[in-house]
Amino acid sequence: MSDLVARTRAFIRDVVIPAEPGWGETLADAALADLRAQAKEAGVHAPHAPREYGGRGLALPEWSPVFQEAGYSLIGPAVLNCMAPDEGNMRLLEVVATDDQKERYLRPLVAGGIRSSFAMTEPHPGAGSDPDALATHAERVDGGWVIRGEKRFISGADGAAFAIVMARTDADGDHPAGATMLLAPLDADGVRIGPGIRTIEAAIAGGHPHVVFDGVFVPDADVLGAPGEGFRYAQVRLGPARLTHCMRWLGLARRAFDTCLDRANGRELFGSRIADLGVAQAMIADSAIDIETSAAIIDRAARVLEDDPRAGAALSSIAKVHCSEAVFRVIDRAVQLCGGDGVSSGLPLIQYLNEVRPFRIYDGSSETHRWAIARRAARARQRETDAGAARLDRVGGPS
Amino acid sequence: MSDLVARTRAFIRDVVIPAEPGWGETLADAALADLRAQAKEAGVHAPHAPREYGGRGLALPEWSPVFQEAGYSLIGPAVLNCMAPDEGNMRLLEVVATDDQKERYLRPLVAGGIRSSFAMTEPHPGAGSDPDALATHAERVDGGWVIRGEKRFISGADGAAFAIVMARTDADGDHPAGATMLLAPLDADGVRIGPGIRTIEAAIAGGHPHVVFDGVFVPDADVLGAPGEGFRYAQVRLGPARLTHCMRWLGLARRAFDTCLDRANGRELFGSRIADLGVAQAMIADSAIDIETSAAIIDRAARVLEDDPRAGAALSSIAKVHCSEAVFRVIDRAVQLCGGDGVSSGLPLIQYLNEVRPFRIYDGSSETHRWAIARRAARARQRETDAGAARLDRVGGPS
Amino acid sequence: MSDLVARTRAFIRDVVIPAEPGWGETLADAALADLRAQAKEAGVHAPHAPREYGGRGLALPEWSPVFQEAGYSLIGPAVLNCMAPDEGNMRLLEVVATDDQKERYLRPLVAGGIRSSFAMTEPHPGAGSDPDALATHAERVDGGWVIRGEKRFISGADGAAFAIVMARTDADGDHPAGATMLLAPLDADGVRIGPGIRTIEAAIAGGHPHVVFDGVFVPDADVLGAPGEGFRYAQVRLGPARLTHCMRWLGLARRAFDTCLDRANGRELFGSRIADLGVAQAMIADSAIDIETSAAIIDRAARVLEDDPRAGAALSSIAKVHCSEAVFRVIDRAVQLCGGDGVSSGLPLIQYLNEVRPFRIYDGSSETHRWAIARRAARARQRETDAGAARLDRVGGPS
Amino acid sequence: MSDLVARTRAFIRDVVIPAEPGWGETLADAALADLRAQAKEAGVHAPHAPREYGGRGLALPEWSPVFQEAGYSLIGPAVLNCMAPDEGNMRLLEVVATDDQKERYLRPLVAGGIRSSFAMTEPHPGAGSDPDALATHAERVDGGWVIRGEKRFISGADGAAFAIVMARTDADGDHPAGATMLLAPLDADGVRIGPGIRTIEAAIAGGHPHVVFDGVFVPDADVLGAPGEGFRYAQVRLGPARLTHCMRWLGLARRAFDTCLDRANGRELFGSRIADLGVAQAMIADSAIDIETSAAIIDRAARVLEDDPRAGAALSSIAKVHCSEAVFRVIDRAVQLCGGDGVSSGLPLIQYLNEVRPFRIYDGSSETHRWAIARRAARARQRETDAGAARLDRVGGPS
Repeated sequence: MSDLVARTRAFIRDVVIPAEPGWGETLADAALADLRAQAKEAGVHAPHAPREYGGRGLALPEWSPVFQEAGYSLIGPAVLNCMAPDEGNMRLLEVVATDDQKERYLRPLVAGGIRSSFAMTEPHPGAGSDPDALATHAERVDGGWVIRGEKRFISGADGAAFAIVMARTDADGDHPAGATMLLAPLDADGVRIGPGIRTIEAAIAGGHPHVVFDGVFVPDADVLGAPGEGFRYAQVRLGPARLTHCMRWLGLARRAFDTCLDRANGRELFGSRIADLGVAQAMIADSAIDIETSAAIIDRAARVLEDDPRAGAALSSIAKVHCSEAVFRVIDRAVQLCGGDGVSSGLPLIQYLNEVRPFRIYDGSSETHRWAIARRAARARQRETDAGAARLDRVGGPS
Repeated sequence: MSDLVARTRAFIRDVVIPAEPGWGETLADAALADLRAQAKEAGVHAPHAPREYGGRGLALPEWSPVFQEAGYSLIGPAVLNCMAPDEGNMRLLEVVATDDQKERYLRPLVAGGIRSSFAMTEPHPGAGSDPDALATHAERVDGGWVIRGEKRFISGADGAAFAIVMARTDADGDHPAGATMLLAPLDADGVRIGPGIRTIEAAIAGGHPHVVFDGVFVPDADVLGAPGEGFRYAQVRLGPARLTHCMRWLGLARRAFDTCLDRANGRELFGSRIADLGVAQAMIADSAIDIETSAAIIDRAARVLEDDPRAGAALSSIAKVHCSEAVFRVIDRAVQLCGGDGVSSGLPLIQYLNEVRPFRIYDGSSETHRWAIARRAARARQRETDAGAARLDRVGGPS
Repeated sequence: MSDLVARTRAFIRDVVIPAEPGWGETLADAALADLRAQAKEAGVHAPHAPREYGGRGLALPEWSPVFQEAGYSLIGPAVLNCMAPDEGNMRLLEVVATDDQKERYLRPLVAGGIRSSFAMTEPHPGAGSDPDALATHAERVDGGWVIRGEKRFISGADGAAFAIVMARTDADGDHPAGATMLLAPLDADGVRIGPGIRTIEAAIAGGHPHVVFDGVFVPDADVLGAPGEGFRYAQVRLGPARLTHCMRWLGLARRAFDTCLDRANGRELFGSRIADLGVAQAMIADSAIDIETSAAIIDRAARVLEDDPRAGAALSSIAKVHCSEAVFRVIDRAVQLCGGDGVSSGLPLIQYLNEVRPFRIYDGSSETHRWAIARRAARARQRETDAGAARLDRVGGPS
Repeated sequence: MSDLVARTRAFIRDVVIPAEPGWGETLADAALADLRAQAKEAGVHAPHAPREYGGRGLALPEWSPVFQEAGYSLIGPAVLNCMAPDEGNMRLLEVVATDDQKERYLRPLVAGGIRSSFAMTEPHPGAGSDPDALATHAERVDGGWVIRGEKRFISGADGAAFAIVMARTDADGDHPAGATMLLAPLDADGVRIGPGIRTIEAAIAGGHPHVVFDGVFVPDADVLGAPGEGFRYAQVRLGPARLTHCMRWLGLARRAFDTCLDRANGRELFGSRIADLGVAQAMIADSAIDIETSAAIIDRAARVLEDDPRAGAALSSIAKVHCSEAVFRVIDRAVQLCGGDGVSSGLPLIQYLNEVRPFRIYDGSSETHRWAIARRAARARQRETDAGAARLDRVGGPS
């Protein structure tokens, strides 16, 4: 275990868990600020962010064990400032932003003084699973751009200082028509936030409201990267962001697993019916298998992502489906193993289950990913047979 | 479809569903009383209760389609007065109570003016999955009995008029030592209710509090059945009560299924990605299979219960495991098929999922039932081989 | 248990099982004939066939327990002459054939002196899952019809006395164009059988060969039912035939289940590791659940089939998917529970697994049925909303 | 892709697959020898074996992609001489044997001129899942040891040149009592082979016979490692041997997957019913997920095995359960997607299914592993709480 993993582990268990809010409550802003201060002091704050902007500078293949430790507490990722959507935005800014933009947006974001949003999804029939349908438009004006359009399910927007907005732009000089990313303060003229959508999970501060951009001016200095290249940059964010969700939720699954192991070790499973312990063993083993295969596919996808972003994105899609479903199963089994306590306020397990349930839907539902995974597999094989591989489905003569 | 099924179906859809409370709200007492009055007028109130005490007098094998229609609304069973634990208590009183007790307890319960509880489960290490561990004791005194003990997870106790209390009694005259059922008003001297346990589901009015009986006097006239025969009576209640849970929740699963079919027919599955519809088809088919096999095993168990209570109880155990898991899967798939709406307050699906989740734990967890099912299967086969059936696992010589 | 069920049970266990052929062997014709003679003597032969033609005359809703007893031995259905495809053909003849045809075809078939086939499936792109694509044609000639076409996967054709052939016919007098069923002796001029397709299962005598009809004359007296009505008659056969497969294989699943229970009762599971018994309990319970839900959905579908063939066919589709998959799981678990013996010639379990594996594909694969089940569910719900039912997927405003 | 992976891939596809025997046939010895000669020439023979003894010298974490390519053909691992049990024996000899033993046993084994066995498992109640029950004994005599005992399920013994025999030995000088490994030629006096156990799979040459050692003398020079240390050495073999099974079978799963993708790309799924393709997509995606998570957990376990054999063995147990079940599912889905061809001799898929089915039982059944995985998880957590970690299952007060 690396030193940072060990320190993160200790910090979460010694400092963060004792400060967790009760059933149905949320962490107060002041308490969060205080915990973040302690995290900085302990040297565990913003593990993924670049050192020169205040983070610990970990490379992507090393994130997983640290993020899992953070996710062991529902509030851990927020305390360590490695929660969605800020964490994905930090990475995007790190890769794409100018030095000036990094000073103005990345540095305060890593410091934790502000929050941010990523504004891509739109109401039907705009950009959703299919980003090509982008309806929000940014018009070229003197010295900048004017954004018009409506976004929905913009996680964290309520209270965020700025959003990275994806908008359609026309060809402009050397820049092709396409999607462009713009950095827009959310207190700008023309921004309207709300109505919010109430969802069953509560882990992301700032909810998931609609955000309307009604003629919002963004100066040239706040265009993120080159105009027209927005979809390419979105991929930069997408693959890792999927994986960090997996990492954090896997940490929570480990928490739930430890909880039911404590119950099992206390010999009170299913109302202390010793004879049922055997039935429990298969469930415990299945959870161990779910946890380790999740950790393994995350690692594999993270390593590939560094070398080959396209192959890595494909693997991150597989990892997302597997982990989101595995994590749900692990927590569901923990609920079951703790019996009545599992569904009551006495333990946080049923709350965990509600926190992770949407993960099978967010960032592309399991079904959308399965469709894409199947299509990619079929096409890859088609390329092989087109290139001369023998078709294997020819039926031999009867014998 | 029988006439009562059709009327219940119409009443639920036309009257009850429009009166359902919103996300996170509960039905007000006055609104419930008003709906019950309408249910009586429509001739659909208390379908399972004996006609002479105000019900519709359906025989057990006919309950399922009616209860499923009731369960199509979360508040339907309460409105029709066929919700747990009252419904199970009515049946127990019908079978075991004296005429006098029926007048005093069954009639007002069927009328819906009062609620009731069934007080068997105790704090560890008392009666739980293993009723033999009964710790609550009723002492013989002049003219009656005095109950001392603590019960936990007593569904509906808060606000109930009376409880059927299971207590250990010593041998007394012709009556053997054993368990005895006593009818105890919950406003009696010596009854203390609370603390409540907050659970994720809210369908049962009156919560699941602890109830302490601290020297509660029950006159002989309020002993239910013969002293010492309590466990036998408990079986009378147990098998059907398991099945009626299955019936009601299966109705809710049908509601969730219809909801996602409406979404599918509206062609907006997974954010209108038409290409994903195929992936959805397997999920829809699996839910149809879950629903129909649940309906079938309920029917089969109900028919057997009428003829052979012992075999019926065994089948009801199988039905309980299958239905509780099938119902969860059906609603979980509906959540998934409705995407972001499935986990938000825009639709009630995620609330339904939380309502049914505990059913895999209550009334014996799936694991406790599986343990019992396996043991029964192994013993039944042992009896066959003991009686001369050839053992089938003898390994033949190599060939 | 009815008398016939009990006698069948005893006959299978006392007479048939001791006569089962060894691993990789098949039952010799003489041995089969001898066993059939004993079955007739025991009054258990052809339980489903009409009494006046030599059967026991059971009504469809009573078949299941008898067929399950027959299926308890792999050779049981053949011995009792209730195996596919003969059993389905008997039913079709019973319902559709003329008295003369019954004498010539049904009577000897029930007696067991001959075997038969049902020739509908064709090579791609002819009639398969989609019967409308029927390519085989019967041309009207003087005094009869001349069949031309190729059929494939014609179960039992090798050695069968006759086949019921489905062929496309033109409009003819009062008869519409459509499909027509014809009774064709397989030793007729123009019939060519083969090549055979070798499959992993061996339960059906006569294999699954191609059959070519190259100008085969069938006299008017051997048209089965009215010309042009073939698809309607096919439905008569289809629903019950699906269910009888379920019944027979469920019997074999019970055999496998008993085998692993005997192993469990002998305390030698997983190499006698007593600590693993708990893990085994969940598997045993899951198999018990699979068996009972299969029995229940078969019963339900059979009852509905008698009253409402269309609804019954839809239910039989659900039953087929559930049972074919449940039966496979039950036998697969039995293999697993018997460890190395489960996959060796010491026990017949792995052979059973191979016998039932194709059942998930034959008679419409699970996937084709799922597609149809989903479509039926969606359309049924569409009819409800078209008729005024409130759509349930409307998203409420955020709260 | 490394050069060796690419060469192996090409060799298997260009040379080995065209030489595969037909349905139900096995590879002739002469054909195998010829293919091995070609493999040596192509530089792909014995990829895992040490270079100085004729192999390619790959380190364990690099084996997986090569072994998967080998396993893409059922006969590939035998051709490349990386099949069980020889491959595991080579590794054991590499780590434990003396130089002299390596010359006499390892070198010819790598060259492929001889085969070998690993003789540990015994008839009940001897060493099976529980190696401590070892009943075979080796008695110290002058200049060596005399083995007496019976072994069962000794894979590959029929025709093997020698076996590594595990026998119980008494304390002897510095050596503790315990298990000792001895190298015994199988043509030695006192060795009796047979009877064989016929199993459903055929991939391992030499079957799985019983082997009786009836006073077999082994000179001191043929003791493998130190007396009394046999269990420790067995661990050296065990972890990697489990993983190489996973690697090889994962290759076969990829073959089956490609086969059904070819069928899907040919648009003939489920009898060319285009409407069913959607149902197929979820199955294809699930297989892709099974394959990638299997590859990932193998990689992870192999990396950990190099650094921490104990942790690696625990992970290899998890990998074995996951991969053996995932591989079975992938091939089962391929069977299903190819419809009737999937269960017939026209395609090898059903044969593949029978080849991998025993893998869920051999080398510790899934259930035995689950039991061990659960126990390890519970104990690991117990150590954490013993060391001061807060117990997580304490129930908070009601709120």
